[in-house]
Amino acid sequence: MATTNGNLHHRHADCGSPSSCGRAWHLRRKMPKSTGENNRVRSRNPNIFWPLTTVAIVLHLVAVFVVFFLCKDVFGVANWSKFLFPASYCTGNEQRLEISAVVEEEISVSSTSGSIPNSMDSIINLDHGDPTMYEKFWKQAGNAAELIIPGAQTMSYFSDVTNLCWFLEPLFATEVRRLHRLVGNAVIGPDSYIIVGTGSSQLFQAALFALSTSPEVFGGGGGRPLPVVSSVPYYSSYPAATDLLQSALFRWAGDVSSLEKDDDDPYIEVVCSPSNPDGLIKAASIRSSNQNVIHDLAYYWPQYTAITAPANHNLMLFTASKCTGHAGMRLGWAIVKNKDVAKRMMKFIEISTIGVSKDSQLRAAKILKTVSDHYELEAVEDFTKLFHFGGKTMRDRWEKLRAAVAASDAFSLPVFQPEYCNFMKENTLPSPAFAWLKCERDIDDCENFLRQNHKILTRSGKHFGADAKHVRVSMLDRVETFDMFIERLLSIDL
Amino acid sequence: MATTNGNLHHRHADCGSPSSCGRAWHLRRKMPKSTGENNRVRSRNPNIFWPLTTVAIVLHLVAVFVVFFLCKDVFGVANWSKFLFPASYCTGNEQRLEISAVVEEEISVSSTSGSIPNSMDSIINLDHGDPTMYEKFWKQAGNAAELIIPGAQTMSYFSDVTNLCWFLEPLFATEVRRLHRLVGNAVIGPDSYIIVGTGSSQLFQAALFALSTSPEVFGGGGGRPLPVVSSVPYYSSYPAATDLLQSALFRWAGDVSSLEKDDDDPYIEVVCSPSNPDGLIKAASIRSSNQNVIHDLAYYWPQYTAITAPANHNLMLFTASKCTGHAGMRLGWAIVKNKDVAKRMMKFIEISTIGVSKDSQLRAAKILKTVSDHYELEAVEDFTKLFHFGGKTMRDRWEKLRAAVAASDAFSLPVFQPEYCNFMKENTLPSPAFAWLKCERDIDDCENFLRQNHKILTRSGKHFGADAKHVRVSMLDRVETFDMFIERLLSIDL
Repeated sequence: MATTNGNLHHRHADCGSPSSCGRAWHLRRKMPKSTGENNRVRSRNPNIFWPLTTVAIVLHLVAVFVVFFLCKDVFGVANWSKFLFPASYCTGNEQRLEISAVVEEEISVSSTSGSIPNSMDSIINLDHGDPTMYEKFWKQAGNAAELIIPGAQTMSYFSDVTNLCWFLEPLFATEVRRLHRLVGNAVIGPDSYIIVGTGSSQLFQAALFALSTSPEVFGGGGGRPLPVVSSVPYYSSYPAATDLLQSALFRWAGDVSSLEKDDDDPYIEVVCSPSNPDGLIKAASIRSSNQNVIHDLAYYWPQYTAITAPANHNLMLFTASKCTGHAGMRLGWAIVKNKDVAKRMMKFIEISTIGVSKDSQLRAAKILKTVSDHYELEAVEDFTKLFHFGGKTMRDRWEKLRAAVAASDAFSLPVFQPEYCNFMKENTLPSPAFAWLKCERDIDDCENFLRQNHKILTRSGKHFGADAKHVRVSMLDRVETFDMFIERLLSIDL
Repeated sequence: MATTNGNLHHRHADCGSPSSCGRAWHLRRKMPKSTGENNRVRSRNPNIFWPLTTVAIVLHLVAVFVVFFLCKDVFGVANWSKFLFPASYCTGNEQRLEISAVVEEEISVSSTSGSIPNSMDSIINLDHGDPTMYEKFWKQAGNAAELIIPGAQTMSYFSDVTNLCWFLEPLFATEVRRLHRLVGNAVIGPDSYIIVGTGSSQLFQAALFALSTSPEVFGGGGGRPLPVVSSVPYYSSYPAATDLLQSALFRWAGDVSSLEKDDDDPYIEVVCSPSNPDGLIKAASIRSSNQNVIHDLAYYWPQYTAITAPANHNLMLFTASKCTGHAGMRLGWAIVKNKDVAKRMMKFIEISTIGVSKDSQLRAAKILKTVSDHYELEAVEDFTKLFHFGGKTMRDRWEKLRAAVAASDAFSLPVFQPEYCNFMKENTLPSPAFAWLKCERDIDDCENFLRQNHKILTRSGKHFGADAKHVRVSMLDRVETFDMFIERLLSIDL
């Protein structure tokens, strides 16, 4: 029921904190150097017999133990080195158990997921970011967005072999370019590549693969697996997706501050902006070279935040699910400047799923076309314009939520500043897809409080690398669910 | 251009042979025991000063070197231990380079992929198993298989939260059950689970994840990562998909014979039957427990082979691409008996792609429904019955191919025996989706010979763990391409 903590909980329990995790890891990297230096002790003076023998035996034992702990799986031994090394680094049975726990608990789907609460006493499930709010818009849009696929269409694996990304449907690529041009939220230069993926989840993993196998990175002889970091609070799926297969290429390393400041080793930083969960605009840390940053821009659309400039990063991820609300399509796209990175991302998708559903690409092309058409071709009402519909709905919801939160001193919300939106041509306040709600006073476990006492399911801050006083609440559910949530929030009186 | 060899080539170059690879691996597992025993040398007799010191220093150096070689990545050193350990086991920079090579070369898409050769001199690309042969059938089927998706349909992540596999569209599940009942090629018991995947490629990886994280396997303390084997010749994508992320959970170990006969350590066996590439019926090796076998039954359909009994294994994979020809849908399904295995497979798909395209599921439901309807509901001609159309086309093609091969002594083909097909109600000869063609006489590199001399692109036997005298040739391309292939084959005169 979305209450137990997966990866993060286990990781923190084992490591103390992400930063101590990072330190333990660096310590280990430095060990052999000192061991190696001691090989120079080769004196033959019999007077130092005992000291020398003792030192040799101690060093030998240390070395044997290091072999033993580091590689205990190779030797089939497990379960008693946990106190020495963080689980996030060891490839042992404990980590397998940890992964298993992650798999059991990371994504919790209950009988209330995706459904509308049918009575005042029902469970209200706002754990997931299921964007069903947009159903109303697309019902109004009618036949314009309807797709017809004949039985014999798009049967081949190949969409366009003249394109680097041979499984990218040209129609879909055209509409992606057109929409970004319309909204002005991303630059797709003539030398940029569009890579389609099965949702941005797959593209995130493809990007990790591409960046961690670049000759610049693995030629540098830095630490392996490559640490993947993001600033807290980070999207709860990043750790699980990174560590799912315990890859030797990359590993989740938590908060960006866990990296040592004077360390020049390469790493990958994920920047989600506006941020899931807290809606704030984020930038890469100063240390990050632009080469190794993944910009997850799933929420950089005008219904959630002001479009202040077209994003122009090396590797940007977008997804249909948060732009148009079609989560069930499982369709995302990456805009990539570096050709080799684009090629390796594409190869990851080739090997893992031999391309991406053409049916979803064709449908997404139709959906995006409808969005752009309603802005560019037709003199229609605002309610048929997706970003105006989305923006108005989100603003209304945030107003209701702020009023409900202000009605008691039990909760608080982040404070946002208005900015000028180039697309809307006016100052707008952010109205993020999630509310990063904080329980005040003596409520230490906000998720538990809302679930146990008020039958409201949210996602605990612990999953985002933050504290349990915070929860993430989806603002994208159907109107019935959202209104019932506000009513129940208003009824809470501490 | 599908000519260079990826994973297999590198692996064999480094290992000598899969079996020597296996031996080296076992040797390493035994090393620390002997090192550990020497820790007991703790005599304090000064007379043995020199021997003791020498032994201690030598042991110490050995231990340091073992640390150094086993874990060279952790210490940032690379590239000079290649002669000691097989690349398939070390998680070092060499393996990164190897993976990179795999990624560059495993799936080769050229400008001719998926296209029809437009002149007698064109390149004929039969490297991929692109099932465009079926386009003709679905054009004939007309509107029956046409799908209409309204703009507001299936927007949520969730399909059916009452099902263990919450992202499985109920309509699709219904049609999968119906089709297997009609054809009689697989048992879906009341306690079995259907897991949908983005093609069977994703399901294959989900199965590796599920089996390698089972408590029975990782509780046993056996060798890690878990070896994944298949009998030669095996499907060329298995090695690349297994080793893509250099997982600590599993690794590709090549031919099933590479495992030592007296070793009780767990492993995963993949059985592809009828086999890609050679079309033969395969069974799991005698040592394999049924728990850890993945049955890839992509080709167990009546157009390719006789349906002799409903398959009833623990974990079976199917894919729309080879059943109905809709490769572009990227849709497969697994039938799984064990609930925990099913749950872990599902969790893999949740974390890697948060479910599977609903558009493709709805389309597949419509396509499968059309197939079953044409058999069950309508008294129609054989050409509107998918398996009859497929069977006839494949038999005609195999006859032409056998005649062309018999016309010279340059090539040979596997010999098949007829069997009674319960579905067709007659004896049928296998007519596999691929021809496993062997170049005879002094042609040692068949792929190179066909490509360089005759502009025919095929996939070399080396990719399948076999020799270069063999190539795999797709039999599923459009009729124009296939006929031109036969003509060109007939023109070859050694």
